[in-house]
Formats: sequence, C-alpha cells, structure tokens
Amino acid sequence: MELVLGIDGGGTSCRAAVAGPDGTIIGRAKSGPANIRTDLTGARANIVEAARLALIDAGKDPALIPEIPALLGLAGSNVGTYRQQLEAILPFPRSIVESDALIALEGALGQADGAIAVLGTGTAFMVRKDGQVRTVGGWGFLIGDQGSGGRIGRDLLEETMLAYDRIREASPLTQALLAVFRDNPRDVVEFTTTAKPGDFGGFAPMVFEYAAKGDVVGERILARAVSDIEASLGVLDLREANPLCLLGGLAPLLEPRLSQKYRAMVRPALQDALGGAVAMAVRRFGEGKAHG
Amino acid sequence: MELVLGIDGGGTSCRAAVAGPDGTIIGRAKSGPANIRTDLTGARANIVEAARLALIDAGKDPALIPEIPALLGLAGSNVGTYRQQLEAILPFPRSIVESDALIALEGALGQADGAIAVLGTGTAFMVRKDGQVRTVGGWGFLIGDQGSGGRIGRDLLEETMLAYDRIREASPLTQALLAVFRDNPRDVVEFTTTAKPGDFGGFAPMVFEYAAKGDVVGERILARAVSDIEASLGVLDLREANPLCLLGGLAPLLEPRLSQKYRAMVRPALQDALGGAVAMAVRRFGEGKAHG
Repeated sequence: MELVLGIDGGGTSCRAAVAGPDGTIIGRAKSGPANIRTDLTGARANIVEAARLALIDAGKDPALIPEIPALLGLAGSNVGTYRQQLEAILPFPRSIVESDALIALEGALGQADGAIAVLGTGTAFMVRKDGQVRTVGGWGFLIGDQGSGGRIGRDLLEETMLAYDRIREASPLTQALLAVFRDNPRDVVEFTTTAKPGDFGGFAPMVFEYAAKGDVVGERILARAVSDIEASLGVLDLREANPLCLLGGLAPLLEPRLSQKYRAMVRPALQDALGGAVAMAVRRFGEGKAHG
Repeated sequence: MELVLGIDGGGTSCRAAVAGPDGTIIGRAKSGPANIRTDLTGARANIVEAARLALIDAGKDPALIPEIPALLGLAGSNVGTYRQQLEAILPFPRSIVESDALIALEGALGQADGAIAVLGTGTAFMVRKDGQVRTVGGWGFLIGDQGSGGRIGRDLLEETMLAYDRIREASPLTQALLAVFRDNPRDVVEFTTTAKPGDFGGFAPMVFEYAAKGDVVGERILARAVSDIEASLGVLDLREANPLCLLGGLAPLLEPRLSQKYRAMVRPALQDALGGAVAMAVRRFGEGKAHG
C-alpha cells in the first residue's frame, strides 16, 4: 500500500493526515506551530512530529517517514526562499510545499472553478477561473490583511486610545476595552510591545459583540473591514455561477455583513485545508508515478 | 562647583550634557540607543556611557558620576514600571526620569505656556496652559503615532501592495517603492518581518518628494497624516497668543501642509530637548537644595 502525507501548517499549529492511494485518510495528528518565516528549524520539527503521530494514529510504523511523499500547505511559503530551504531539510522522499491558501482552495472547491476568502487572524483571497489560480492579499498584519481579526482588534485598540485622548468619541466598546487594561492606557501600549497578530485578533469577537448591540465605534470598525473585504472580492472578478467559500474563524461573523451580491454566491467548503493537502498529494504524486 | 547632568535618550541614541549650577553647558556627548522598554540594561549602559563621555568632554573626571545628579528624558518612561526600574539601577546620587516629550517641551518653551508637536518617527503632542501640562498621543507605531514618519512609510507600503493587487490605483510613487524591492511584493513583506518603526519611517521622505510632484497616492497619504495631526492639535485647545513649536525630523516637511490657523502659531523652539533636560535639572536639583 502506497501512502501519502498531507500537511497543513501555520503559526499556531501543524496538522498532518496520512492517506492511502485513493485519498482515504487513515490517520491524523496535530503538533505545534510551523511558521517557516520565523522559525524554520522549529517548523521542521513540528511538521515531522505531526507526520510521525499521524502514522502512529494510522497504526503504521513512524520509521516509514523516509518512504512517504508529503504535500505541505504552509503559511509564509510564498515569501523569500523559506520554501526551498524547508524542502531541502525535510525527511520525506519527495516534498512539495505550497501556500496555505492553495490547499484551502483545493479543500473548499476540489478542482472546480470558484473562490475562497480566508477570514481569520489574517485575510487572503484566491480565485480559480478556467483552472488558472490568482491570489489577492495575504500580505500580513502590518501592511495587509485588511478586514482580518488582527486588523479589527488593532483598530479597536487605536480607537480606544483616540477616545482616551478625546480625539474620537468613546463608546461602550472602547470603555469595555480600556477596562480590560484596568482603565490604564499605558497598559494597552505595553500589551502592543509584544502582541502578535493573533493577540490583536483576540479582541475581534468583542467588536462584533458590541457592534451587534449598535455600538457606534464597533459599527465603524466593522464597516471598514467589510468594505476592505469587498474591495478584495471585487478584483477577483467572480462569476455568479461559481461558488465562493468563506473560510477562517471570522467567516460566520462576517458573512451576514456582506452585501447580498456576495452572500448569494456563498457555498459551504467541500472539505478543510488538510483534506485539500491530501487530495493534492494523491494527485501530484500519482501524476509523478504515471509519468515516471 | 556643583555640576548637573541632563540626558535625552531615545530609540536611536542617547545624548548627555553636563552643566554648571547656572545651567551653562560645559560638556556634551552621545552614545547608543536608550530604549528602556526593549532593553533596560543596554539603555542603562548607554546612559552611563554618554554621561561619562560628557564629563570627559568637559575636562572632568568621569569617576565623578556618583556625585552628579541627573535628569533624564526618556522615550517609553510613561509606560509600565521601566522608569522605576531604571531609577533603581542608575549610578547617579539622584536620578529623575521624565518623558522625552516633557524635556522637549521645556527646551522649546522654557517655563512658558504653549505647545509642542513632536513630528518624527513617532508623534506626540504636549500643551502647557496656566502651568498645567497635558499630553496627547505618543502611543507608539502600532496603535498610535498618527501622522508620524513610521505611519506614513507604513501607509506607503500598504498602498503599494493594494496597487499591486489592483485594489487601489498605482502611481509613480507606488511604482518607485516597489522598484526599491526589485518589483517583488514578497520582498516588501519580507522587509516588514523585522522592520522597526524607524525603518518604515525611512520611506516617509519619498512620500513627500512624490506628493510635491502631485502624486495622487502620495497626496492621499499626506492628507491623512495632516488631518490626523490637526485632529490632535484640535484637542489641545491652543491659545492663539501662545507659541506652537513643531519638533522632530518631519516638522519642516509637514509645517507647510498645516492649515493657516496652525501655521500662524508656529514659533521656533528656544532650545532642543537636551537643553530642556539641563534646564530642568538645574531647577529641580536647585529646588531640592533650597528646600533641603
């Protein structure tokens, strides 16, 4: 039986699935973060650990790793030479590293045309049209990821400081945020010294909660996020007949706020990104075999 | 002769001046960064080094440090307990740590009423009215510092990525920025992985240069920066009769863009922040002596 590995790695965890030649998953596992941009060695270790545990979960010998090809979808693999560096040090006989967005697209749509909007700590958009894939966004918290949880949380902190300085109006939401920091704006600044995008994103649900109650600052922050997301959707040139899958932790919160035009196109994803990685692994490594 | 030390420390360098009891500066020196939030031990070392070199510059024995009181204006001293931590480990017989903005206010205005706008890598605003001081802004790059070089440079990078994705229009400015990164948007993202506010601020002069030639993206970025700065000035409740001093590296570039109302109030600073630290040192330690 010829096995394949599909791997989905990001900044918070790494998931692996081992599957037979028909794509049936027989084992799954999860390990720690696999951020190849900030910790390549640690990412490699967690990738191998997830693969090892998935083999054990499937009742297979983890010593088989050097014999099982792997397809990995990894955040950050589209920047710099991290992808090539990683491929060079992985223990699999063949490794294909793709972006995390591409395995999400494959999972959501299979090989059909359509689009995904990843709405989580970050945001990214991908459309497949006549088989051609185009990516929009996904440039990270500092200069991109408009409409993301990270940006929504950051916007709340900025609005709170502006309210403290009486430059913008305060609201129940900005007051509640400041209360989290013991009503001390200096503690808010202190938080930002080491906060990562996911830490900012931790405040996003609070923005939705207060906006639902009509909070003026919450509404303003979300109006901007939705406007930014729709601007990205706008350049994807979507076809009404093709599915649009909203992925990521904020998708259920953001979907009702999108305009009718986009909501009408939304379909559930066929499977998750890990399933997409497995499906791609079966296809790519199968192709290789057929051709070789 | 009883000496005092004035010290002006920030994220890029630390300056020290030693003065006689009348405030006449007799020695000056400069050392490395003194960022008490990110590197307290390193900040202490550079503070002591600047003081030591200032004594040598004055022809005095640097071994006198344990006998000379110091007033320090330090970035980040208004957050957390860094100030108290630092005061506990400094070698001076008496140490007073104030914010960098307060010594800048003292330098610019002496003890008179008026206001300062610090327009550099970050932004901060301070007004003195009937002797009472109020600070606005200065909350840092991530959730504050609106209108700063750091934010202007970051805005340029964000606009460039949006133009690359065809979400916003490109312009000669966004094209020139992308060319800096070999026309590779992934290299822009890579830059942001480790870039500090000052690194983003390094692109601010380019925004002014292109805006002066009518670049539409440059004009939009600066219009927002000026609007943010005027919003901060607006809450200071300035009196027309009192001086407004624009400080920081971007002050000469931003001043002509302010509305006539504010430009009419602008006056040159009496002296720089280091001079302000020395003046405060003479007054505070002199007071202490008179009372003690």
